[in-house]
Order: sequence, then C-alpha cells, then structure tokens
Amino acid sequence: MTATAPRNAWYPLTWSRNVTRKLASHRVLGSDLVVYRTEAGEPVCLDDVCPHRLAPLSMGKLKGDAVECGYHGMTFGSDGRCIRIPGQQLIPANAKVPSYPLHEKMGLVWIWPGEPDMADPSLIYDLPQYDAPGWHAAHGDALRIDANYLNLADNLCDPAHVSFVHLSTLGNSASEEIPVEHNFKDKGVLVWRWIRDAAPIPLFAKYGNFRGNVDRWHYYDYVAPCSAVIDFGSADAGAITDPEDRDQGLRIFACHFITPVDDHVCIDHWLHVRNFALDDADVDQRLHADFRIAFNEDKEILERIEVVERSRPDVRRIRLGIDAAPQRMRRIVERMVAEDGESSAAQATAVSG
Amino acid sequence: MTATAPRNAWYPLTWSRNVTRKLASHRVLGSDLVVYRTEAGEPVCLDDVCPHRLAPLSMGKLKGDAVECGYHGMTFGSDGRCIRIPGQQLIPANAKVPSYPLHEKMGLVWIWPGEPDMADPSLIYDLPQYDAPGWHAAHGDALRIDANYLNLADNLCDPAHVSFVHLSTLGNSASEEIPVEHNFKDKGVLVWRWIRDAAPIPLFAKYGNFRGNVDRWHYYDYVAPCSAVIDFGSADAGAITDPEDRDQGLRIFACHFITPVDDHVCIDHWLHVRNFALDDADVDQRLHADFRIAFNEDKEILERIEVVERSRPDVRRIRLGIDAAPQRMRRIVERMVAEDGESSAAQATAVSG
Amino acid sequence: MTATAPRNAWYPLTWSRNVTRKLASHRVLGSDLVVYRTEAGEPVCLDDVCPHRLAPLSMGKLKGDAVECGYHGMTFGSDGRCIRIPGQQLIPANAKVPSYPLHEKMGLVWIWPGEPDMADPSLIYDLPQYDAPGWHAAHGDALRIDANYLNLADNLCDPAHVSFVHLSTLGNSASEEIPVEHNFKDKGVLVWRWIRDAAPIPLFAKYGNFRGNVDRWHYYDYVAPCSAVIDFGSADAGAITDPEDRDQGLRIFACHFITPVDDHVCIDHWLHVRNFALDDADVDQRLHADFRIAFNEDKEILERIEVVERSRPDVRRIRLGIDAAPQRMRRIVERMVAEDGESSAAQATAVSG
Repeated sequence: MTATAPRNAWYPLTWSRNVTRKLASHRVLGSDLVVYRTEAGEPVCLDDVCPHRLAPLSMGKLKGDAVECGYHGMTFGSDGRCIRIPGQQLIPANAKVPSYPLHEKMGLVWIWPGEPDMADPSLIYDLPQYDAPGWHAAHGDALRIDANYLNLADNLCDPAHVSFVHLSTLGNSASEEIPVEHNFKDKGVLVWRWIRDAAPIPLFAKYGNFRGNVDRWHYYDYVAPCSAVIDFGSADAGAITDPEDRDQGLRIFACHFITPVDDHVCIDHWLHVRNFALDDADVDQRLHADFRIAFNEDKEILERIEVVERSRPDVRRIRLGIDAAPQRMRRIVERMVAEDGESSAAQATAVSG
Repeated sequence: MTATAPRNAWYPLTWSRNVTRKLASHRVLGSDLVVYRTEAGEPVCLDDVCPHRLAPLSMGKLKGDAVECGYHGMTFGSDGRCIRIPGQQLIPANAKVPSYPLHEKMGLVWIWPGEPDMADPSLIYDLPQYDAPGWHAAHGDALRIDANYLNLADNLCDPAHVSFVHLSTLGNSASEEIPVEHNFKDKGVLVWRWIRDAAPIPLFAKYGNFRGNVDRWHYYDYVAPCSAVIDFGSADAGAITDPEDRDQGLRIFACHFITPVDDHVCIDHWLHVRNFALDDADVDQRLHADFRIAFNEDKEILERIEVVERSRPDVRRIRLGIDAAPQRMRRIVERMVAEDGESSAAQATAVSG
Repeated sequence: MTATAPRNAWYPLTWSRNVTRKLASHRVLGSDLVVYRTEAGEPVCLDDVCPHRLAPLSMGKLKGDAVECGYHGMTFGSDGRCIRIPGQQLIPANAKVPSYPLHEKMGLVWIWPGEPDMADPSLIYDLPQYDAPGWHAAHGDALRIDANYLNLADNLCDPAHVSFVHLSTLGNSASEEIPVEHNFKDKGVLVWRWIRDAAPIPLFAKYGNFRGNVDRWHYYDYVAPCSAVIDFGSADAGAITDPEDRDQGLRIFACHFITPVDDHVCIDHWLHVRNFALDDADVDQRLHADFRIAFNEDKEILERIEVVERSRPDVRRIRLGIDAAPQRMRRIVERMVAEDGESSAAQATAVSG
C-alpha cells in the first residue's frame, strides 16, 4: 500500500509496446498486476493474485482473452470474473479478481486504481505538441528510482537544482543566483525562470550553432500526482521579446510520467518532444544519452536522500524560498488522498459489487 | 520459532549419509543444531549454541564423543552435559545444552524436538515396500523451498494441481475435470483419483511400453505434520479391476519428508520406491531428473505464493471442492500444536531438569 | 543510534591518512559524518546531512574550507554554519549542521560525539612507547566486524580465548588450564596471565631464536569504551624475575581502538608497537600477516555470536571465572551511558545553540 498516493488518479502503468499477448506483471501503488492485450488489441489489467491459493496469475496461461491460473486452472475473463473451475460445476458468485480501467495515450498505458466510475481519460496530461506538425516525439526509458515518488515530484517542481546537479548537461553556474517564479493551480504548479544573456548550456551548445550568449528558459509544469513536463530551450540573447514566443528558439518538452511502485520505489517514464531535427533519429539518441546522464544524477541523489530520510527522522529541516512550489505540490497530493477517503465507500462497492 | 509446527512429532533432520564424524549444523523449527556421529556410530544432536558466550558449537572441535567450543574450550558430552571448563575445576550444575532424541529410518535421521519421553520411533511413517523384495528404493534430494512447510503439505494433499503444474512429467490434461476423493484419518488424510482410459503421462510413457490408453492412479497419503507418500502408477486400460491390485501395473511411491526450517523455509527430503527396473541405476537417474523438473515446478509456485501471502493479507480466499483435504490437514496440525501446549510443562522439566 | 555506546567519550573516526581534501563519509554511533581537512590541514567533521532536503553533504563539493551541498548549493563552513544559500539573501539563524571536536593521536583522528565542552584530548589512550626511542610503531588495518563493539571489547578483556582461537599464531595449548588474574580500575580493567616454562607460540618462535622453553605473558589493558592495548611477549624461561622487566624480552603492544559504527557493526583500528627489529619493514609485514589471521579468527566467531544473540534471546547464559573482567567492563560502559543522560540537557544546548 502506498499511503502517499491518491487512488483516484491516472498513473502510467507501462509503455504501450510492453503490453502484448504475453502475460506480464507490473507493480503500481504496492499492488502486483497482471497485464496483457486481448485478441482484439485492448489492454487488460487484473490483480495478479488468484483468490484460490494466491498464486500470481502472471505465472499462468493466456487462453483467448482469459487468464488460466497455473496452479489449479481457475480461469478469469478480462473483466476479472471467474469463468471456469476445473473439476467442479458451480462457480461461486465471489469468484473474481479486481480489474482496472486503462487508457492509452502518448505511447503509455495509463491505469486508474481508484473508483472506476471516476476514470475520465480527459484527466490525463495533455501535451498538444506530442503529435502536432513541426514537432517530433521520442520515447525514452523507464527509469527505476528507489525513492518515494513525491521526492521525484519535488525535483520536477524545482528548476534550482539544475545549476548544481546537471552541470555537464542541462545546467551551468550562470543560473545559481537567479530566483524561481511560480504560479499555483488547483491541481498543479508552474515554476519557471529565465537566465538571460549567458553562455549556452552544454546540451544546447551542441545543436544551436549559437554565436554568443543566449536567453534560456525552464518552465516546470507539474500536474498532481504524477505528471511533470519541463519546457526548456534557448535563443540568441535578446531575440525573443515575448516569453510566449518560445517556439522561435530551440525548444524541448521533457516529459516525466511517474509510476509509484510502492512507498519506496518509483519509475520515471520519460520522453521528449522537440521543434528541431525532426526526422533525425541520431539526434534522438544523442539527446537521450544526455538525458540519461542527467536523470541518473537525479536518481543518485534521490536514492541517497531516501535512505537518509528513513535513518534520520530527527533532523529538523530548513525551508528555503525555492521550496514554495514543492510544498504546494505536497499540499495538493495530501488533499487528493483525503478526497479518496471521502469516495472510498462508493469505491468499495464498485470494486467488489 | 515455528509457531505452526508441533514439537511433539518426528521430523527429518538430514540424510543419514550427512551425519559423520565432522560437526555439521542444521536448522529445524527455527533452532540451529549441531549434528555428528559418536565413535560407536550413533547420531547425536545438540543445540548449536554454547551457553557461555553463544558461539555456535559447530565452529568447535569433535573430541571423542564430545564437542569442544571453539571460543573458550567448554566441552559437552553427547548427552549435552558439560564435562570440562578450561581454567576452572567447578562445573556448574546448569552447564549443559539441550540434546534431542534421534532415530534412523529410510536413509534419514529423524529428530523429535518435543518432550523426550514421548519420542516413540514407531510413530515415524512406515512404508513396508521401502526394503521389501520386488521393490527398489532410490534416495533423491533435499530440496529447499522458501515457503512455510504447510503450503508444501497443501500441495501433497492435492492431486488436482498435477494437471496444470506438471504437464511435462507427471500430468496431462486428461485429468483436468476429474474430481478427487478423500478419506479422513485421525492423523492424516488419503486423497486419490483414477484417470481411466487416457493417454499415459510423459513419465510412464518412457518406461511402460503401453500400446494404447492406460488407467492411471494417484493416492496421496499424508500423515501429519511432515510426511506424504504419493502412490501413483499406470496399467493398460481395464487391466486392473480391483484397485487394491495396483502392484500389477507400474507403481511408484514418491516419498516426501518435510523439514520445517523456520516459518518461511522448508526442506523436502524426497526419495522414491518402485516395482520395476529394480537393479537399473540408470532408471534411478532418469526418474530423478523428471522428479527434479516436477518438484522445481512446485517450488517455484510455492515460493511465489509465500511472498504474496505476506504482502496481500487483504485478499479474501475462495474455497473449492478440491480443498477439503488440505483444510483437514491444517485442522490436524492445529490440534497437534494445541496438544503441545498441554504437555509443555512436563516438557520444560524434561529438557532443563 | 547506538544505545550501548556513551557519547561523552573519544572514538577513533578513521586513520589520519584518510582525512584529506576530498570529502569522505564515515559512520560512527549510527550517524553518518562528512570528514575532510581544511586548507590549513585541520581535520573537520560535520553531520553528513544537508538540513534542506537531507542530501548527504559528502555528495557535494569542498570549496575552500566549506562544503557545498550537491543538490541546491547550500554551503556550510567548517564550524557547520551556513554561509551561502543560492538564490536568496537571508540565511536563517538555524541553518547549520552539527560539528564535532576532533583530535589526532597515534595516526588516528579521534571524535568526541558528546558535549563539546567535555572533549579533553588527555582522555585519549596514551601509550608512551608509541613514539619512544627503542620502539617501533606500525599501523595495521581497519577491520570491519559485524558485531556490537562490546562483544569485541569482551574479547579484548579475555586472554583465555587465545588458547582455543589462535592456535596457529598467538596461542598454544600450554595455556589452556592457567587461570587469568585481573585488576579493576575506575575506567577500565587490566587482565593478565603468565605461562611459564612452555614452548614458544608460533609468532614468537619466528623472531626469538629461543633455544628452549620460554616464559610468556599477556597483559590486556582495556580503557572504556573503545581502547584495548595488549602487552604480550616472551623471554627464555626463568630469565625475567621481576614482571616489570618485560622489556628484557621480545615485547609487543597490540593496540585495538574500536569504532562503534552502529549497534551491529564495529571497526577495529589496530596497530602494533614493538621493541625488536625496529627498522625492518619486512617484519612489519610478516607480523601483520599473522595478526590478520588471528583477528579474522576473532571476527568470524564474533560475527556468528552476533547472529545467535539476536535469534536466541531464550538461552540462559553460564558465567565462568574468566568472565569477571568482561562483566566489569560492561558495568563501566553502562555507568558511562547513564552519565551521558545526566549531561544531556547541557549537551543538547551545546549542539543546537
């Protein structure tokens, strides 16, 4: 059980390409799930536990659109209802496993662990540029981080760390003293800063052919509980006068969709969308190599912090100005968890009824 | 401590061949034990803990029939009483370690962890065919399974799983829909079914030279808490009219004697006894190769179930018709554990007095 | 937190040679510490936790004499006070990390985890021979032992174990039955015995050119909580008439300075000081090779005991005559822990004030 994650929310389950006619097991919010695709191509997700002797269903066989348990052959349809018990005719009414609403978007299968009636796909993060003309999307990795997902979310509401953590890729020291600005939204936060008239960061220096200094921006758009899209880019110093004209520079959306595996592990499903080198697969790979360096720098720090948080509950923390957005993020998630409780009676009925 | 295992019972400690003039350590019911053989050839089992500083006695030396601790030289006889303390003359009356009744049978050393006065060797499982003319016994392995021993006992009261778990060796789909029958006894259960006029299973097809379909039987004879002997075999369809004439077919007793190591680990000491190819060591090896495949299939499922049982206490289980015998088995073991409590005052006196 | 270790005491932190201009992390009494040397060469030790987001400071950068956190650049001086917060002017008064008094002696950096005002370097164990003429000191290893440090301290108040544990190096069976003698001091114990007119032990046989039997001594000088110096040596049988004339024989001080890492791990920083082969680095290495064999024999037993102590709280221990000194040692340490409590109000003020 992941006490810190709201259940009435969409979470990335895995890349769409991983959901096939072979049974696979994934873990989300502390629950193991068996995942597969029907003969018609629809993704299916059930609890990965046979209610007879608790064998994982993912050890069984996919038969048509149903799953046969590998221990005694109990068989469940894609809606979770038992359709066969070998050796007996009567199928008890309670012989079923929970199933979960899914939706595919941006190359990911998304799962709604909460009340099925509330599963509205329009609530999934929407990035119009993902499949718009003039833009190119490239899927990255599923990066496992041994940390609570909210510590990763902290990081994704926090442009300030870039100046210290990512000096070889995404940041440089020019930004150290520049404060961050933020807007609070009902379900998220937007945090940003511009670093003007400074040397380009290593990553853009490779693609921009900039002759001198640049203006550089970071806009961190976080939507609770698990989506963060970082709009960052650069243009010749002074070239962009209206911040809304960022398309005139080199612009990248780095998308992070977080799966809370349990309270101490999360997976960062990351991809990027860019407005340059659209048909150049080589640029995909070179950018991803840089992202891997940067995101592994985050992983290393977050995993160490996770250990310290558990061993040193005595340390009294100091709050800084840059913490306004991460603190707001945590208030939003806490509110969503509380709202879960309010709808849980209805949810219990929906799942078991 | 293994809360689920009665102490007043015989358990396999290890194969007789492993008990030698070299100190060895084995773990049974959560206790570490030092095991060796006296100069006269008698097996000895003491707690593997020196009561001085808690060093394992198995790190010490065997001197004659006594064990000398490797830290300060305290020495204990085969009855557990201290016979020497280097540097001091007086040996305190309480200077001793618990010793346990042992008995050798069927190539195994058996231990009685409970009240010594109750240790009656006639209570150990008896299979007359083990050393009878016309039969051949072959010792198998000590298979470690990371699961509570009762989950393995479940499996050994349960012919139904064979149709799904062991398709390449012991089962085939012909038996899927055939219900199981059972007899309840005071200290065990007998569960069986016949699959008539069906293709032979892979294992017997190799040895039987059957021309067509066969009648096949499985009799699972479980005696609480740790012994299960599976009588299975095949004969030409219709050839055996009285079920008691099973010797007329190919017949194997697959014996499983379980050691509960602790609450989450057990060891399946398995061997087999058969009425064909009596002097053919090659058949021993070929049958054991098949058994290893089959028993590892059980191991894999049982170890996964062990993990799920701990992580998902919330799952409400569904009981099926095939569960009657396993449920009875658990009631018998619970009764034996309760009876332990009734005799524990006497036992405490016997062990420490 | 190590409940069994007094805080108002000096402990070895690490060898002096390991404290450099590179940030290093060491763990003492359950706390992670960042350790480095200032530009002027003074050793510094701070809590290895940034109070902002709990990143380990040892992942950051050493900038002059200050440490910059690797996550958001908070920077702390060698006294632990924050001197910079990137992006904001105001530094909160409570922005600091605990720092600890250090002192260098005998090639080690020593730390005082308790009340800083009580940190008197004269309390560190003093061995005049360490740098006296006619003596030679050689630093050994930092041997990690997965055991509570008091179980190692037991061993270092205990000459009797040598006859059983170290037969290939430091002991032989001649000493088995010779009782040990002891003096109790306010902060420690002295335990000794002489083995007279016996064959030399393997280690001294290599260096002594003894023609026949020798008189051999062991004096174990333990000072709570973490220092033990073992004075041992040999001379021709009958050659030394006054025990105070031990310098006339081959004499070695084997020094053990113990770091309690946490309740279940300690590090034995060992070195030796001798009165023979003063300028022979080859003898350093040969003696250390023997010591490594012997101390690893202790490590093996102590690590096994640590496991048994945790799994068998039920075993009632037997106390022997040789246990008088170890028992006294534990009473002294318990008294020091209790005295910590009496000074803790003052300490809390000193650390956080």
